[in-house]
Amino acid sequence: MARAGCDLIALALVLAVGCRSPEPATAPERPAPAAFAQRALQDNGAWQALADLVAVAPRRLTGSEGAERAVQWAAERFRAQGADEVRLEPVRVPRWVRGEASAAIVGEAGDEPLSVLALGGSVATPEEGILAEVVMVRSFDELRAQPERARGRIVFFNRPMPRALANTFQAYSEAVPQRGSGAIEASKAGGVAALVRSLTTQIDDFPHTGSLHYEEGVDRVPAAAISTLDAEMLAARLLRGERVVVRLRLSCATLADVVSHNVVAELRGRELPDEVVLIGAHLDAWDVGHGAQDDGAGCAHVLEAMRLIRALGLRPRRTIRAVLFINEENGLRGAHAYAERYAKELGRHFAAIESDRGGGPPVGFDCNAGGDKLAAIRAVVHELRALDCGAFVPVPGGAGGADIGVLRPAGVTLMSLITNTQRYFDYHHSERDLLATIHERELALGAAALAFVASSLAELDQR
Amino acid sequence: MARAGCDLIALALVLAVGCRSPEPATAPERPAPAAFAQRALQDNGAWQALADLVAVAPRRLTGSEGAERAVQWAAERFRAQGADEVRLEPVRVPRWVRGEASAAIVGEAGDEPLSVLALGGSVATPEEGILAEVVMVRSFDELRAQPERARGRIVFFNRPMPRALANTFQAYSEAVPQRGSGAIEASKAGGVAALVRSLTTQIDDFPHTGSLHYEEGVDRVPAAAISTLDAEMLAARLLRGERVVVRLRLSCATLADVVSHNVVAELRGRELPDEVVLIGAHLDAWDVGHGAQDDGAGCAHVLEAMRLIRALGLRPRRTIRAVLFINEENGLRGAHAYAERYAKELGRHFAAIESDRGGGPPVGFDCNAGGDKLAAIRAVVHELRALDCGAFVPVPGGAGGADIGVLRPAGVTLMSLITNTQRYFDYHHSERDLLATIHERELALGAAALAFVASSLAELDQR
Repeated sequence: MARAGCDLIALALVLAVGCRSPEPATAPERPAPAAFAQRALQDNGAWQALADLVAVAPRRLTGSEGAERAVQWAAERFRAQGADEVRLEPVRVPRWVRGEASAAIVGEAGDEPLSVLALGGSVATPEEGILAEVVMVRSFDELRAQPERARGRIVFFNRPMPRALANTFQAYSEAVPQRGSGAIEASKAGGVAALVRSLTTQIDDFPHTGSLHYEEGVDRVPAAAISTLDAEMLAARLLRGERVVVRLRLSCATLADVVSHNVVAELRGRELPDEVVLIGAHLDAWDVGHGAQDDGAGCAHVLEAMRLIRALGLRPRRTIRAVLFINEENGLRGAHAYAERYAKELGRHFAAIESDRGGGPPVGFDCNAGGDKLAAIRAVVHELRALDCGAFVPVPGGAGGADIGVLRPAGVTLMSLITNTQRYFDYHHSERDLLATIHERELALGAAALAFVASSLAELDQR
Repeated sequence: MARAGCDLIALALVLAVGCRSPEPATAPERPAPAAFAQRALQDNGAWQALADLVAVAPRRLTGSEGAERAVQWAAERFRAQGADEVRLEPVRVPRWVRGEASAAIVGEAGDEPLSVLALGGSVATPEEGILAEVVMVRSFDELRAQPERARGRIVFFNRPMPRALANTFQAYSEAVPQRGSGAIEASKAGGVAALVRSLTTQIDDFPHTGSLHYEEGVDRVPAAAISTLDAEMLAARLLRGERVVVRLRLSCATLADVVSHNVVAELRGRELPDEVVLIGAHLDAWDVGHGAQDDGAGCAHVLEAMRLIRALGLRPRRTIRAVLFINEENGLRGAHAYAERYAKELGRHFAAIESDRGGGPPVGFDCNAGGDKLAAIRAVVHELRALDCGAFVPVPGGAGGADIGVLRPAGVTLMSLITNTQRYFDYHHSERDLLATIHERELALGAAALAFVASSLAELDQR
């Protein structure tokens, strides 16, 4: 009963869309969001896809055997679902292997182990480890102001993800520089390694990994993530004035590049096959947990959206192209390969929509379009209010995820599926990123929302 | 970054509210939704309240000792938070006790136990149980069409909650009549007991309880909920033509009424203390699980909303009255007692807002108001779009939850906090309704949304 009002709103919006972008008389009627949701919830295909993916390739870091199994699996699944064409597009990718990681506070009473994970891309320590005193900083400015404190030390970056921000991605973006550039800044200050507080608002004992960068001309020092629980403990001891000495051992390594693939599947457009609505996610995942949220959920959204569009008997005017990118987590090589391969066609990409915010309940879409196109897309997204996921967030500069972000310079209209991410960073890049954190109905509704928007945009009369 | 657009929308809406309902120059500035969210997320008070409630009174069925502990606890907590006044308002309530429940398929190979729970309010079976053949129906119409099938049998109502509906409350409302009235319909058809498929879209082994009704002049037969897993198994055997005999034993009982209380706490209005914005939830819970979702979360929303409003230094124009009702689950006596006690003041209730949809991420509010008042309330709710929970659902007939629904005949404007409930019915009325199902950030944002809307409505110039 509570939805009756929403249906009226949705109806009004359908009419509004009609006024804004009149369809030719021959255009088939677009199904309502509820039709997508019903099919998605009834068949539970997104959940089945995700459960299958994490069974086939629970660990699928770029360049690994698991990643190749995931590539083959995805192609087969698209074929089995009846895509018009499925292609494996070669991408030269980096290969980093985690090896072992350990850290401990070294004291008179014996070693006290710390929960750590190497940051992706880190160099190894010497085999015997690095033994050094720890110095804590909360920001790069603090470190730069007193670089002598860091000389010969392990620099402990302890800036928490600010828990008071309702937008968890904003909180993440405020704290993530210490992970991405902490090793560079530590090295510039004379430090011998970096320990980085895990990026999560929870206080628990799971370290969260993620990629780091090095800078040409700056010595590469090893870097590891430390759990928030151990970060709090370390901080408390350091703030009491205790001298804390830590031994850090990492045996990670960067091997030679290998060839992997983006997986591309198409539903050819009925009238404008050269115009493309891209829906994408990334197939690789960090090699802790099973990447169920990041980005198995996105892959399931994309696979299921393609299945739903066919299951509802649709063949929209434009081509819908599903792309499961490789190497989002540590290189974006898949995204760059796509941008190069299709450079001449990007002008005919009507929109590129990414799902890389986990399997939580869908909230809506963001979009970087302007003018009439923005209005038309907004009207489509607003129809989803009937499913409580019709929020529309215009972000002129910055919509979209990391993979489709590579298409920004080409002027492609970028969108991303926004989910509720209050729980997301509890799991992100850690051993907790498992299937059990995802609810089948929330995942199904995300796929339904993506299928509705992609197929509706592929049908719009708007240029 | 993705929120920049939303902030603009929120700003536009603030301006729109300003145009619609100009405040006198002396009215204090209302804090933005983000201010409530920041405080709620930083302090984590809603989670602390809920954790405390389920520790103090994990089982708090109306009339039980646990319910009385919950009443005293809530009053103390409101006082400790600095409410202007806290009252315990007596309510004569029913007292039903669950006793033991067991059921088993009785066959040559021995008993096969079934997962069952007595429905709330059920009469007991004889001590030796009821031994009868089972007949399955999917609807009352099917039962009424062939009542002879039910004579002397245990009637098994096996209508699933339709999983394809995106709105879980709508799915619930389609299946709930078999729980509420199954015992009546079984008895009218000559049946000796009712077994009712649990109301959840999950297939698992947890029975979900809930209240039933009896009808004057119709023999009262015992009724129990059966887990969906066992319901599926029973159905498969019956559809194969197997004769299934079940022994059902329930030792539940209805005792004499006792006196319990609604807990009422007020923040007195600055200018219009006799006008009331009511925020409510229910303190009682079924005696399985800990009622963390139903409705511990609502109690935590209400307690925390009152704390947040004070913490932000607000004293709105109208009185904000928190009411934690007793006996929502099996009688609504608390709601009726409130309606009687305040009968003469209901005309000065600006709105009554209920939270009884669990602790999931807040989505928005529904509302049964019309005209200018609807527009003013809608504008306030839309400000919450900055937090992705500004959905506004006008439902002229039916807004609000069960407790405040009792105020409908008096013409009170009713609203309820809508949360995302895709997971809710996995836990509802079962042993799974535990604190661990609730996420502290989702709960905090629900409290922030409630605090923002209640304090804003209490400040509006609108009559």
